Amino acid sequence: MPNDRKAYAQREKYYMNGELYPFLRVGMQKVNLTPTVTQDSDGNTHREENAPVLIYDTSGPFSDKTVQVDLRKGLPRLREPWIEARQDTEVLPQFSSEYARRRLADRSLDMLRFEHIVPPRRAKAGKAITQMAYAKAGVVTPEMEYVAIRENMNCRELGIETHITPEYVREEIARGRAVLPANINHPEAEPMIIGRNFAVKINTNIGNSATTSSIEEEVDKAVWSCKWGGDTLMDLSTGANIHETREWIVRNCPVPVGTVPIYQAVQKVDGKVEALTWELFRDTLIEQCEQGVDYFTIHAGIRYGNVRLADSRLCGIVSRGGSIMSKWCLLHKRESFLYEHFDDICDIVARYDVALSLGDGLRPGCIADANDAAQFAELDTMGELVTRAWQKNVQAFIEGPGHVPMQKIRENMERQLSHCHEAPFYTLGPVVTDIAPGYDHITSAIGGAQIAWMGTAMLCYVTPKEHLALPGKDDVRTGVVTYKIAAHAADLAKGHPGAQVRDNALAKARYDFRWRDQFHLSLDPERALQYYTEAGHTEGEYCTMCGPNFCAAKLTHDLRKLK
Amino acid sequence: MPNDRKAYAQREKYYMNGELYPFLRVGMQKVNLTPTVTQDSDGNTHREENAPVLIYDTSGPFSDKTVQVDLRKGLPRLREPWIEARQDTEVLPQFSSEYARRRLADRSLDMLRFEHIVPPRRAKAGKAITQMAYAKAGVVTPEMEYVAIRENMNCRELGIETHITPEYVREEIARGRAVLPANINHPEAEPMIIGRNFAVKINTNIGNSATTSSIEEEVDKAVWSCKWGGDTLMDLSTGANIHETREWIVRNCPVPVGTVPIYQAVQKVDGKVEALTWELFRDTLIEQCEQGVDYFTIHAGIRYGNVRLADSRLCGIVSRGGSIMSKWCLLHKRESFLYEHFDDICDIVARYDVALSLGDGLRPGCIADANDAAQFAELDTMGELVTRAWQKNVQAFIEGPGHVPMQKIRENMERQLSHCHEAPFYTLGPVVTDIAPGYDHITSAIGGAQIAWMGTAMLCYVTPKEHLALPGKDDVRTGVVTYKIAAHAADLAKGHPGAQVRDNALAKARYDFRWRDQFHLSLDPERALQYYTEAGHTEGEYCTMCGPNFCAAKLTHDLRKLK
Repeated sequence: MPNDRKAYAQREKYYMNGELYPFLRVGMQKVNLTPTVTQDSDGNTHREENAPVLIYDTSGPFSDKTVQVDLRKGLPRLREPWIEARQDTEVLPQFSSEYARRRLADRSLDMLRFEHIVPPRRAKAGKAITQMAYAKAGVVTPEMEYVAIRENMNCRELGIETHITPEYVREEIARGRAVLPANINHPEAEPMIIGRNFAVKINTNIGNSATTSSIEEEVDKAVWSCKWGGDTLMDLSTGANIHETREWIVRNCPVPVGTVPIYQAVQKVDGKVEALTWELFRDTLIEQCEQGVDYFTIHAGIRYGNVRLADSRLCGIVSRGGSIMSKWCLLHKRESFLYEHFDDICDIVARYDVALSLGDGLRPGCIADANDAAQFAELDTMGELVTRAWQKNVQAFIEGPGHVPMQKIRENMERQLSHCHEAPFYTLGPVVTDIAPGYDHITSAIGGAQIAWMGTAMLCYVTPKEHLALPGKDDVRTGVVTYKIAAHAADLAKGHPGAQVRDNALAKARYDFRWRDQFHLSLDPERALQYYTEAGHTEGEYCTMCGPNFCAAKLTHDLRKLK
Repeated sequence: MPNDRKAYAQREKYYMNGELYPFLRVGMQKVNLTPTVTQDSDGNTHREENAPVLIYDTSGPFSDKTVQVDLRKGLPRLREPWIEARQDTEVLPQFSSEYARRRLADRSLDMLRFEHIVPPRRAKAGKAITQMAYAKAGVVTPEMEYVAIRENMNCRELGIETHITPEYVREEIARGRAVLPANINHPEAEPMIIGRNFAVKINTNIGNSATTSSIEEEVDKAVWSCKWGGDTLMDLSTGANIHETREWIVRNCPVPVGTVPIYQAVQKVDGKVEALTWELFRDTLIEQCEQGVDYFTIHAGIRYGNVRLADSRLCGIVSRGGSIMSKWCLLHKRESFLYEHFDDICDIVARYDVALSLGDGLRPGCIADANDAAQFAELDTMGELVTRAWQKNVQAFIEGPGHVPMQKIRENMERQLSHCHEAPFYTLGPVVTDIAPGYDHITSAIGGAQIAWMGTAMLCYVTPKEHLALPGKDDVRTGVVTYKIAAHAADLAKGHPGAQVRDNALAKARYDFRWRDQFHLSLDPERALQYYTEAGHTEGEYCTMCGPNFCAAKLTHDLRKLK
């Protein structure tokens, strides 16, 4: 990250303070612009200043030149004083998970281990410490004011109306329509919000598999993902040293981290699905809650009676968690322990404020399987589960497909809203055609932009390697930028307050031939600059696309001088 | 091309014959598939054949191993006998354009010149020789049957209902709802159709500018574009030797070629817009008609009284042709010669069956300018012009934006349909956000897929270099594949007959771990294979994304064996 700073010479870190909580410093990026210089028909030069533009920033301290980040020590613990001040949690003398304690005691892992492990924190007995619990109790937390400021940035100064106030954030969380993932054991994360009345967010997936990748690579990908704009990060590791990898990632991650705990559980039983038990899973949940994971994907929507609905499909079950739990149900001929113990799961995660992402284990894996009985049966179950989570003050959202042709997207959104009581929807694309492996970031951004416009709160990114291989760093960058496009397009369509400020500033820079300004305002300044300079440009009033005589912008400048 | 054939080992050229015209051989690609091999729970092996899949093919003779293409001689003249048989055209003793004759006589150009220039053909006096004229007269031409077969492929064999018959093609052309671009001087092109009741088509732009590129590069890009799936090709050259470059492209192009004649006209007056005249433009039109250009973009929709409507815009006029004609109008303080001579233009192009693409010179160039008065004033004028074209049996379609946020796309389509009498719409994207230079193939594919679903007949591709530089070969490939995705997604959504056959076959191949079949069925087999093999795969029953223990497809296979 530090060596990229040169490329962002005109971007600087900028903080806005809170009003309810004046100690809040909400980080964003400020893009400083050069003036517009024009000549009128009499040859006089006019100079017009261009106001700086604020950009929503997910890179946390990494983009603040005044902060020296040491990955071995982890990020500053931003929220720790806020959490302490509430006095409703306590620091435990040791980790509650047996597995966590075993790993910690294993000296052979010292080489891999993050050095500065902090003892875990948990709710005091009888205390409801989730953001939802506070919201229902009428309390506007610092986290809530933080996200209100973060969503609006300088809308007020610009005279742009906004519906987002700290109180509005509280209301949305209270009624379950928005989630503010904020595990008390991940105080490094900057508060952000997932809900359809806020900016559309994107999640990125990283994580090793049995065949590839090291801890260093995964931490590197995590930081990289935040740099490009990932709002949350899922660590989907299924390979070696999942526990230690996760510690490194969480300690260095300025955005909420999600996981799919069943992956680690399966890894603990050496891939033997039949050997999975509630007890093992429970310990895994606690292990991850105390490490600081902010949300868990739980495939509790799979009912024993519904698994066979997927038999008639072209592609069967394509969710890893879904296929694991389906297999478990069939082998044991009973409901899954996730469904049966769902209230227990809620009780556990409520003590850390871990949110639940109800996993769509029966999502369609190809166009032919979209919107089928298996998929919608699970969605209905998730509607039941989300109300149970809310009863325990657990924040929750719903995962969605997958592979859906465009004409079937709307039904997904409408059914989710009505059956899941407006809990936030979190979709994987959807991919709108199956015929483009190698380009599924694009097939899915097409679907993602549409469903986000209709109301999906967060999009899970897809990289060009989807269906083919584990993504590398450049795939992560391409995936994130592609999804930022889809999310931003939806923000524009929904009229998110101030969303168009950046578009307008960039368009004006383009029209003015302020090339550097244009690039600094863009989602990927480095790539734009690279394409431009590779073509041998010299910041003139045209580019190689049209050459000097055919530049429409240049001609329009001439036109405006004509009387 | 020939050296890429190895990558397509399972693809072969396949021809279907006509019924009305048995001599027709409609080219497509046939993808041969391997069988599905499964083991049941008792360990018995089952083998199920997978039917070959037909793919719409734009690469013409280049993908037929039995044809040896010599670029110096040009492609076989497929339609020449059909045209001759109609006996309503004649071969001229020499080129009618003064400029063409001058270039031909210039010995210094011999080095550059295509060697086998054929004398031009034109309608006999009093004969109406456009596909629209035939259609209105009730004649189903070989071209019409060709496109009917091409659109349907083997739907009938597969038991898929289709509304597309040769007679239906005729009706759609007769009422102006579809265009079959077919200049009698481009007999090398395979007939194709542009209309919203047919498969969505994509256009690719190539062409040099003053600062870059050679003839060889441009021909190479043209062939390359057809290989990846470009349905039509616009040569937008604005640099040196436009005339000679075009000859090479047209003679080697199996798809219809479009141009923007005003570019060459401006080049002929050394960039001095004020020096443009109707006479110069007229000679340029005839020059290009006789070379074989299949459609012309004509910015006749710009009215003198409307130019100033763009003054209040953030980005002014971003169409090259639009800014040229606007400047001309303002300098001369009068209506443009394109508008005033529109009937003359129609009379000229009707003699060659060149279609008109009514250029949107006032399309919005940024989100802020979308759907404004300037844009819609021009659209209304185009509605007037298209009826005038039809009166002269000239096929015509309407160009559309541009930069439009998602929530404003529908208004574009609806207004175009109602004001332009259902003439085909041909849009450039639209780009749905301005903030992603370097990724505008994606910002625009998001808008393109949506507007195509709503009824746009053809999408003009955008490459990653849009707004930054002239695209290179890899950009052309990425742009074409991205737009094939958008077009195909729309075909699925519209229920184009047989569109889903390919998706289903690919999905089944994916589920079966028939990796090679999956890649051969995909839009870019080479890239899919590359990503897969780079990751060190060995065609096992998983990929590095999940590894062997976490492959959902593998787990589902196990699941189906469970009783």
